[in-house]
Amino acid sequence: MAVSLKDIARRAGVSQATVSNVVNGYRPVGEATRARVQQAIDELGYTPNLSARHLRRGRTGIIALAIPELNNPYFAELADAAIRAATRRGYTLLLDYTDGDRDKELLVADGFRAQIIDGLILSAVHLNRDDIASRTSETPMVLVGEAIYHAPYDHVVIDNLAASREAMRHLIALGRRRIAFIGAHIEANRAPSLLRLRGYTEALEAAGLPFDPDLTVTTSGFGRGDGAAGMRALLALPQPPDAVFAFNDLIALGAIRALHDHGLRVPGDVSVIGIDDVEEGRFSIPTLTTISPDKEMIGRLAVEKLVDRIEGRPAGPPAEFQPPFRLVVRESAPAAGPA
Amino acid sequence: MAVSLKDIARRAGVSQATVSNVVNGYRPVGEATRARVQQAIDELGYTPNLSARHLRRGRTGIIALAIPELNNPYFAELADAAIRAATRRGYTLLLDYTDGDRDKELLVADGFRAQIIDGLILSAVHLNRDDIASRTSETPMVLVGEAIYHAPYDHVVIDNLAASREAMRHLIALGRRRIAFIGAHIEANRAPSLLRLRGYTEALEAAGLPFDPDLTVTTSGFGRGDGAAGMRALLALPQPPDAVFAFNDLIALGAIRALHDHGLRVPGDVSVIGIDDVEEGRFSIPTLTTISPDKEMIGRLAVEKLVDRIEGRPAGPPAEFQPPFRLVVRESAPAAGPA
Repeated sequence: MAVSLKDIARRAGVSQATVSNVVNGYRPVGEATRARVQQAIDELGYTPNLSARHLRRGRTGIIALAIPELNNPYFAELADAAIRAATRRGYTLLLDYTDGDRDKELLVADGFRAQIIDGLILSAVHLNRDDIASRTSETPMVLVGEAIYHAPYDHVVIDNLAASREAMRHLIALGRRRIAFIGAHIEANRAPSLLRLRGYTEALEAAGLPFDPDLTVTTSGFGRGDGAAGMRALLALPQPPDAVFAFNDLIALGAIRALHDHGLRVPGDVSVIGIDDVEEGRFSIPTLTTISPDKEMIGRLAVEKLVDRIEGRPAGPPAEFQPPFRLVVRESAPAAGPA
Repeated sequence: MAVSLKDIARRAGVSQATVSNVVNGYRPVGEATRARVQQAIDELGYTPNLSARHLRRGRTGIIALAIPELNNPYFAELADAAIRAATRRGYTLLLDYTDGDRDKELLVADGFRAQIIDGLILSAVHLNRDDIASRTSETPMVLVGEAIYHAPYDHVVIDNLAASREAMRHLIALGRRRIAFIGAHIEANRAPSLLRLRGYTEALEAAGLPFDPDLTVTTSGFGRGDGAAGMRALLALPQPPDAVFAFNDLIALGAIRALHDHGLRVPGDVSVIGIDDVEEGRFSIPTLTTISPDKEMIGRLAVEKLVDRIEGRPAGPPAEFQPPFRLVVRESAPAAGPA
């Protein structure tokens, strides 16, 4: 059980108000009394109430992380890292779930629940720079992910162009020549998909491979079902692909299932690579080759930049922070053997 | 963009205070003015601010759902259902994440953030009835899941004993005779594991099959890694099992991967069944046979019972609610062929 001010008061033989004055510094307390209260605090192992401390500074001690999908384990893993970082800085992190809905993203960015949160970390899908520029809320905000670039907020995001190029270089080194991309989005402001798609086309060009528009598959969502449907469309082509670069791991895992249903082997017939490094891909059959962003660092940096802004630490102008990523080679696209 | 009181005031040619009086009923407003404000509201498509409405009743309009794991998609799917149900009732649902930690569960149950939430839905792992009985917070609470039975709170949970028996009957009907259980917990108060284990042993007995303690594997967690490790332990037995009943889908998926690594076929050599029906099991290779609890109903009932208590609707004494479940037969343990 948590130790209360009442417990301390009883142990120290003073009133609760006196304990509160010692703990919160509301009024001066005589030295002897203070010492007795402090001894009771030490003996009972009391940890000060962070809420009270925040309240004295006009804060609630609560920050929100708004994510577009609960069912995508990437966001659960990111949230996990952010929650741990927030706890270390003395904040409680709430999850806001925007359901990939543009109106909900606007609502969250514009200060929904502004009374109860000190700051917001926003992972948007639909909002663009213009939406964010017309934001009226003054609640500090940090952006994560790839939807919004060059807005006047701290922004934590991996280098998506470089990540895509590295995924593609791996497939090309395996000798793959008809490489498909699943997870393009037609909406013009879908920056992450655009950057990953640009990495795809640039890598093809760098390798002297032709760009075949039939091999770029647009999806409406980012889930396993989208990946499976995209793969089925590719398998209906006169010349199906020999490799798949998927926008994320869930799409890749759905594509692998569709290939299996079609009687094709991964990686024997088709190599598959994703982005995210979700735990599922370490246990799937085959295990999934992927680009692993440093999710721990993304969550931690987002929280630290936000808390610095909330607490008025010198933080300089808004900046972009790029946590590292690395290629994780597993069964779905193993390393090329010796030539 | 959301319509504000200011927008309405401008359109109606009245002050913001007047609009607020019409919308919130703070002070009487003349009929002609009221009509003009109402017309502006209708024309602009304004939806009243639920927060304000809750505040007038001494509420915040926020309820919390405390879950033990973010990385288990079961809880993400449950949260998704609860969030939708809360929105329908005019509440915002926050996720609290207890990390399967006993102290955090106590903290949450005992009224952590009591100032900002109207009620709590708690999915506990460690707490038992005694912990809950000594709760001091008066914030309304509803329990979901299997850790705590017979506490004085509404409780939403499937019939775990019946669910386990049904899973076992399916494996036994396939002709399996050495059926292992992965996911037992040694801690005495782990009710869900105990009930599922009891269903396992009762089904063996009903089928006249011997209970072999070597086939019951204790795990420390509920993840894919726990399932894989448990399966490896079983495969090291002189007489390995011919089927696995896993405590949940993630454990089942980890077990399938360990079987694959060992060169065994699922379901050819070993049949596998889980509980939860997470999306991953619809795309895994092989797809996963499972017990599917009605997650939508669990989330919805938990929210509705909680909101009834918060709003003081006649709700009767605390009761237990059992949403249905069903067996979903897929590749990892397909239906028995004709005899």
